[in-house]
Amino acid sequence: MSYFDAASSAPLHPVARQALLAALDEGWADPSRLYREGRRARLLLDAAREAAAEAVGCRPDELVFTSSGTQAVHAGIAGAVAGRRRVGRHLIVSAVEHSSVLHSAELFDVTEVPVRRTGAVSPQAYVDALRPDTALACLQSANHEVGTVQPVGAVAEVCREAGVPLLVDAAQSLGWGPVEGPWSLLTGSAHKWGGPSGVGLLAVRKGVRFSPQGPADERESGRAAGFENLPAIVAAAASLRAVRAEAAQEAVRLRELTERIRARVPQLVADVEVVGDPERRLPGIVTFSCLYVDGETLLHELDREGFSVSSGSSCTSSTLTPSHVLKAMGVLSEGNVRVSLPFGAVSEEVDRFLEVLPGAVARVREKLGAPAPAVVVGEDALVVDALGKRCPIPVIELAKVIGDVPVGGTVRVLSDDEAARLDIPAWCEMREQEYVGEEPADQGSAYVVRRVS
Amino acid sequence: MSYFDAASSAPLHPVARQALLAALDEGWADPSRLYREGRRARLLLDAAREAAAEAVGCRPDELVFTSSGTQAVHAGIAGAVAGRRRVGRHLIVSAVEHSSVLHSAELFDVTEVPVRRTGAVSPQAYVDALRPDTALACLQSANHEVGTVQPVGAVAEVCREAGVPLLVDAAQSLGWGPVEGPWSLLTGSAHKWGGPSGVGLLAVRKGVRFSPQGPADERESGRAAGFENLPAIVAAAASLRAVRAEAAQEAVRLRELTERIRARVPQLVADVEVVGDPERRLPGIVTFSCLYVDGETLLHELDREGFSVSSGSSCTSSTLTPSHVLKAMGVLSEGNVRVSLPFGAVSEEVDRFLEVLPGAVARVREKLGAPAPAVVVGEDALVVDALGKRCPIPVIELAKVIGDVPVGGTVRVLSDDEAARLDIPAWCEMREQEYVGEEPADQGSAYVVRRVS
Repeated sequence: MSYFDAASSAPLHPVARQALLAALDEGWADPSRLYREGRRARLLLDAAREAAAEAVGCRPDELVFTSSGTQAVHAGIAGAVAGRRRVGRHLIVSAVEHSSVLHSAELFDVTEVPVRRTGAVSPQAYVDALRPDTALACLQSANHEVGTVQPVGAVAEVCREAGVPLLVDAAQSLGWGPVEGPWSLLTGSAHKWGGPSGVGLLAVRKGVRFSPQGPADERESGRAAGFENLPAIVAAAASLRAVRAEAAQEAVRLRELTERIRARVPQLVADVEVVGDPERRLPGIVTFSCLYVDGETLLHELDREGFSVSSGSSCTSSTLTPSHVLKAMGVLSEGNVRVSLPFGAVSEEVDRFLEVLPGAVARVREKLGAPAPAVVVGEDALVVDALGKRCPIPVIELAKVIGDVPVGGTVRVLSDDEAARLDIPAWCEMREQEYVGEEPADQGSAYVVRRVS
Repeated sequence: MSYFDAASSAPLHPVARQALLAALDEGWADPSRLYREGRRARLLLDAAREAAAEAVGCRPDELVFTSSGTQAVHAGIAGAVAGRRRVGRHLIVSAVEHSSVLHSAELFDVTEVPVRRTGAVSPQAYVDALRPDTALACLQSANHEVGTVQPVGAVAEVCREAGVPLLVDAAQSLGWGPVEGPWSLLTGSAHKWGGPSGVGLLAVRKGVRFSPQGPADERESGRAAGFENLPAIVAAAASLRAVRAEAAQEAVRLRELTERIRARVPQLVADVEVVGDPERRLPGIVTFSCLYVDGETLLHELDREGFSVSSGSSCTSSTLTPSHVLKAMGVLSEGNVRVSLPFGAVSEEVDRFLEVLPGAVARVREKLGAPAPAVVVGEDALVVDALGKRCPIPVIELAKVIGDVPVGGTVRVLSDDEAARLDIPAWCEMREQEYVGEEPADQGSAYVVRRVS
């Protein structure tokens, strides 16, 4: 079994396991107590905080441990906005943030900064979004679905000049290195770098106004309520230090492996779009989308072949809308596959993945290829009725009829699947046909495409 | 070293350790993913939920795992009040709840129900506190500082009749057995029963209106945000089942040990008040207070002798006010010691504790006994000026001069220490002197005592 979904959760690093076991014996007591076991727990907690702060690049008293990366984001955003309540309740976030950031931001007045087709924001877009009532800006250090590294340093400078704090969600990159630039708040999640689950971290620079929300609690400087999850905190700090020691070497190795996937997949599989920035990207993540493929079925095929990957397609069990990241990037979402290699992934596994992928995609396409499109000739254009059909069927039917359209003529695809709004324009771009636009229809929408070649 | 502070945090149960280790290997992946590792994690999570629900006495779909008992309380209270926002924002809590409940309640309109000298509430007091706008009532199953078991079943009945949901904080009792009665919400904390830290649980009965607060998150039915701390959850459920299997036998054994402490301490140490209900109490907790003793110094003396206990006295490093529990009970808070025996505590350790306690108390009393009271003869009464002196000095000075007061005469103790308000009346009750009352003074207050014997 090859586990290629490290961006969801990394397997436990051996150092984390070792530290956890030791801390189960030494660190189960309440660190706020005065007796021997309590003092021992306090020492472990202090040492973990120092190690984590060093890795983050902040002072130990600026860093608290939370119960997850999500809790760190929730507490960080709520506390930072409350700390600047006199300024206003306006937030700036990128359109490709993690859902924990977007859901936190929903509670306020929010501007979503768009991204380029690579998934990266431009610092100028943050400048444009600034308002007098902007309480906080948020930007991920790198994207969790496509691996694109964001210009955090430049955005942090822009924010500093405007006097607006910047919160950086560093969940995907913290194992690789500290975040550059004058950020104000930073969050992380231990299970993303090979630490245990149950531990996040929140750093708040001195001088940043911060007012913890929720019921009062004396633990972790009042910023993370509840009994400290000490053995896991110890393991988180120890493994962060351990992965950092290996990061430079491992980055070179994994980058070579993902580069191999980036280069080979379009050669091995027809109608594939590799997405994300080819240069400014995390070493271990590569994402591509396959036309005429249903993401969930492809995941099952790959799972059967022994590969665990994830998908931002709309057709996965947990969601019926395509990934907001792919949507914001304006790239194809159907048949989407994210490969995120864990530390230690071996070259042979990647080669075997490249071996089985073409067959897996072909099998899915064969399964889906059958339905004959219902073609209706309208007054001046062909109409494809794909109502009630889920992605990728609308695009498959479009592809089947485009040859029947005279060059310069149009075809209308009727669809009530949300994913079509993204995937039909993406297909046009890949196929060099003209996407004319979307029109309202009795049911769903009509997507108009002009044949230009 | 004898660890007698299980009510703060219990040492990890061997079954918890074993389950945690197994789940580190099997349960690190994201349970919402469709591939092998994700499905395996989902199976573990489902099994843990079933085991925990069976122990709690609810359906699996009524129970979610949180990142701590405190988080369970915060989420439970916030969600339950929001679910009944049309009814109102009035909360009823007992005066002796855990701080996580009291701090949550502070955010609303709250009535604190008083307790008897034993620490127990009366169901009638809940009836009296009910209002048309009461959204929620809260009552602990048993008190964390003195071990008194609350009449939860009767209070739950009272609440049901009034159509008000009752949230039971079962942190201290869940290892011993399920909570009786028609409660609506229930919270627990794994590290209190020998599970790992980082896991709490929140049960919400079907039909109870509940509206989760904070940013949206799809995990744990939207009631506990963030990546599931799966290995710890598995360990929590396994250890709950394990301690329950031992509970009946262990309860008899520990009750005998705490009964021994209850009976022997007043024989071995002069001027001691054993607090809490002598009958309706948890098996492992016994609490007593020693006149003329500073709690923190006594903890240090006992720690040096190899005993880890805690104190609700005002003179501990983390706080300058006496325990709100002892205050609400109206009992002596100075020189307070809580002994809470973990599962497996042995008889010989308890005997050794009883051996060293008298000497430890005597040494603290000797250290503190020195200061000569500043006695001023006023117009009609003796005045003891204890301003600027911390507990237990005001009571020590009162005790020193009471012999100089003629029977029927009064003495005024001037004190600006908050603890005096509690400890001077408690001393009067123990010494069978009359506590006349408190009067305002230029600084602090004057506490008036009449000598009656």
